[in-house]
Amino acid sequence: MTTTIKVAIAGYGNLGRGAEAAIQQSPDMSLVGVFSRRDPASVTLIDDSVPVYAMDDIEQYKDEIDVLILCGGSKSDLPEQGPALASLFNIVDSFDTHAKIPEYFAALDAPAKKANKIAMLSVGWDPGLFSINRLYGEAILPVGETYSFWGKGLSQGHSDAVRRVDGVKAGVQYTLPSESAIAKVRNGERPTLSTRDKHTRECYVVLADGADADTVRDAIVTMPDYFADYDTTVHFIDEQTLASQHNKMPHGGFVIRSGVSGTDNEQNEQVLEFALKLGSNPEFTASVLVAYARATYKMSQAGETGAKTVLDVAPALLSPKSPAQLRKELL
Amino acid sequence: MTTTIKVAIAGYGNLGRGAEAAIQQSPDMSLVGVFSRRDPASVTLIDDSVPVYAMDDIEQYKDEIDVLILCGGSKSDLPEQGPALASLFNIVDSFDTHAKIPEYFAALDAPAKKANKIAMLSVGWDPGLFSINRLYGEAILPVGETYSFWGKGLSQGHSDAVRRVDGVKAGVQYTLPSESAIAKVRNGERPTLSTRDKHTRECYVVLADGADADTVRDAIVTMPDYFADYDTTVHFIDEQTLASQHNKMPHGGFVIRSGVSGTDNEQNEQVLEFALKLGSNPEFTASVLVAYARATYKMSQAGETGAKTVLDVAPALLSPKSPAQLRKELL
Repeated sequence: MTTTIKVAIAGYGNLGRGAEAAIQQSPDMSLVGVFSRRDPASVTLIDDSVPVYAMDDIEQYKDEIDVLILCGGSKSDLPEQGPALASLFNIVDSFDTHAKIPEYFAALDAPAKKANKIAMLSVGWDPGLFSINRLYGEAILPVGETYSFWGKGLSQGHSDAVRRVDGVKAGVQYTLPSESAIAKVRNGERPTLSTRDKHTRECYVVLADGADADTVRDAIVTMPDYFADYDTTVHFIDEQTLASQHNKMPHGGFVIRSGVSGTDNEQNEQVLEFALKLGSNPEFTASVLVAYARATYKMSQAGETGAKTVLDVAPALLSPKSPAQLRKELL
Repeated sequence: MTTTIKVAIAGYGNLGRGAEAAIQQSPDMSLVGVFSRRDPASVTLIDDSVPVYAMDDIEQYKDEIDVLILCGGSKSDLPEQGPALASLFNIVDSFDTHAKIPEYFAALDAPAKKANKIAMLSVGWDPGLFSINRLYGEAILPVGETYSFWGKGLSQGHSDAVRRVDGVKAGVQYTLPSESAIAKVRNGERPTLSTRDKHTRECYVVLADGADADTVRDAIVTMPDYFADYDTTVHFIDEQTLASQHNKMPHGGFVIRSGVSGTDNEQNEQVLEFALKLGSNPEFTASVLVAYARATYKMSQAGETGAKTVLDVAPALLSPKSPAQLRKELL
């Protein structure tokens, strides 16, 4: 009998549910439990044969879990849970506050090293797969420019900002990459693009009773940090349309490296592009987390410890296949 | 003073020249010499201050080179040079005969391990970056299909086949991906595509004196293995047009993983795409080789030995930047 990698999930929102679904697609893994801060009896999993435990009891299970996938948020959950759990488990998380990654890395590295565990942080697509492609691009084509575009995607933070505006009853916000900017970049033009040039924003808003549409539109499009620097379009819709046509969480984007090779006398354009078109942002992020949980397990078995990111993970470690099989089938 | 990585090149055709240019773009490396089977006096480098040596003398330089980049061909050069040089140097090569990679891996692994060296094989874009993306795709989205498309690109092997046809004085062949097939794949349709469905072939031919165009066209489009399974178009042009409009070596292609996440009851389409648009195929391959020469050096410094492929290389090793700098700037 082959042993499977024993995985557990801490936090069961959209991301945790996506992780459960991704583990079901991975025959080399078994989900040994889900930990929640809610009453375990109130948490309904996809597979009701998997046990749900109280987060407070997690330490009791420290010898039964090979890798713990943290599915909490980056704002308050992970900065608190990550360092504490890194001293008990091999962990993987999707911490995505870019500016705070170095600080969070340090907060995980010490407890993980002390406990001989691995803490794999900031896994997902950005940070994550996009970061890897930014690195491949600049390492292979050192003379050039890197461009990251996001969307079309539902932005949680910007949707929250829209919903905080007086007169807004409900709403969502999509970030869209500018097609003309992408075309220039793909064409090797290496343009200088401002934030406004690269993306546009589209809001779908349900007005509160008696609210004035023009006042609400003005409040949104002039909002500093969130909308003032972009071309923002506001569409007013009814609640039914919002519920039926804006209930998915699509996302995606592009990383493009446009560079030149050759000599000063004869240069050649080289363009490398990585693109994602995601039907569900949380499910895709969870799928990335699960693949890196496999790598975390292998790295831990090989004796590695401490904080790691996707940049530290050799591609072969993500696969359930053997190195020889990978060379034969994929190389 | 920072020490640079001492790199040498074995073989100075288009690929070797591309490697010299890529090393010039890499301030952390210095090119200590080029080895050639030709008379060294007859080899003209981009930088004439770099010494050219006879290939037969290469063993004398074994303590002066950190990584040797092999720029010979996969058919006869590398199978002979690789195993011999792997016992003297850390080597990197672009061996691209897909079916023979497992055998070639084994032929390099033993001498490299014995000599405590690293032999990094099959580096480039396919095998290479495309292989990495096939792996990321299937590891992250285990339920799905992977599609590789090549082109538009000049194919050396197919151009040679065209030139061997009776009545052909000169000519080139381009492989083109089928736009309609790519559109279906990008759209998440996961079609079953035959070889003929995925690519078309385009030949530009200069006829020999007195040759019959129809006879030549028939001989090309019905050629087994090379053209019979494809929609092939043959254009007849004059020598001047061939020289002025078909003197570049563009290439490129796409790896697309189209998969689903979620549960049986509610699935979401997820599409991951990696694309290259290369102005010069040999220069890009050389740029990839040089980045992996850097990784080879770091892995050797860390005590690793034996045959390795791109699937074994953590992204961070490709960059001249420190892990902390990479986390701060790229993650």
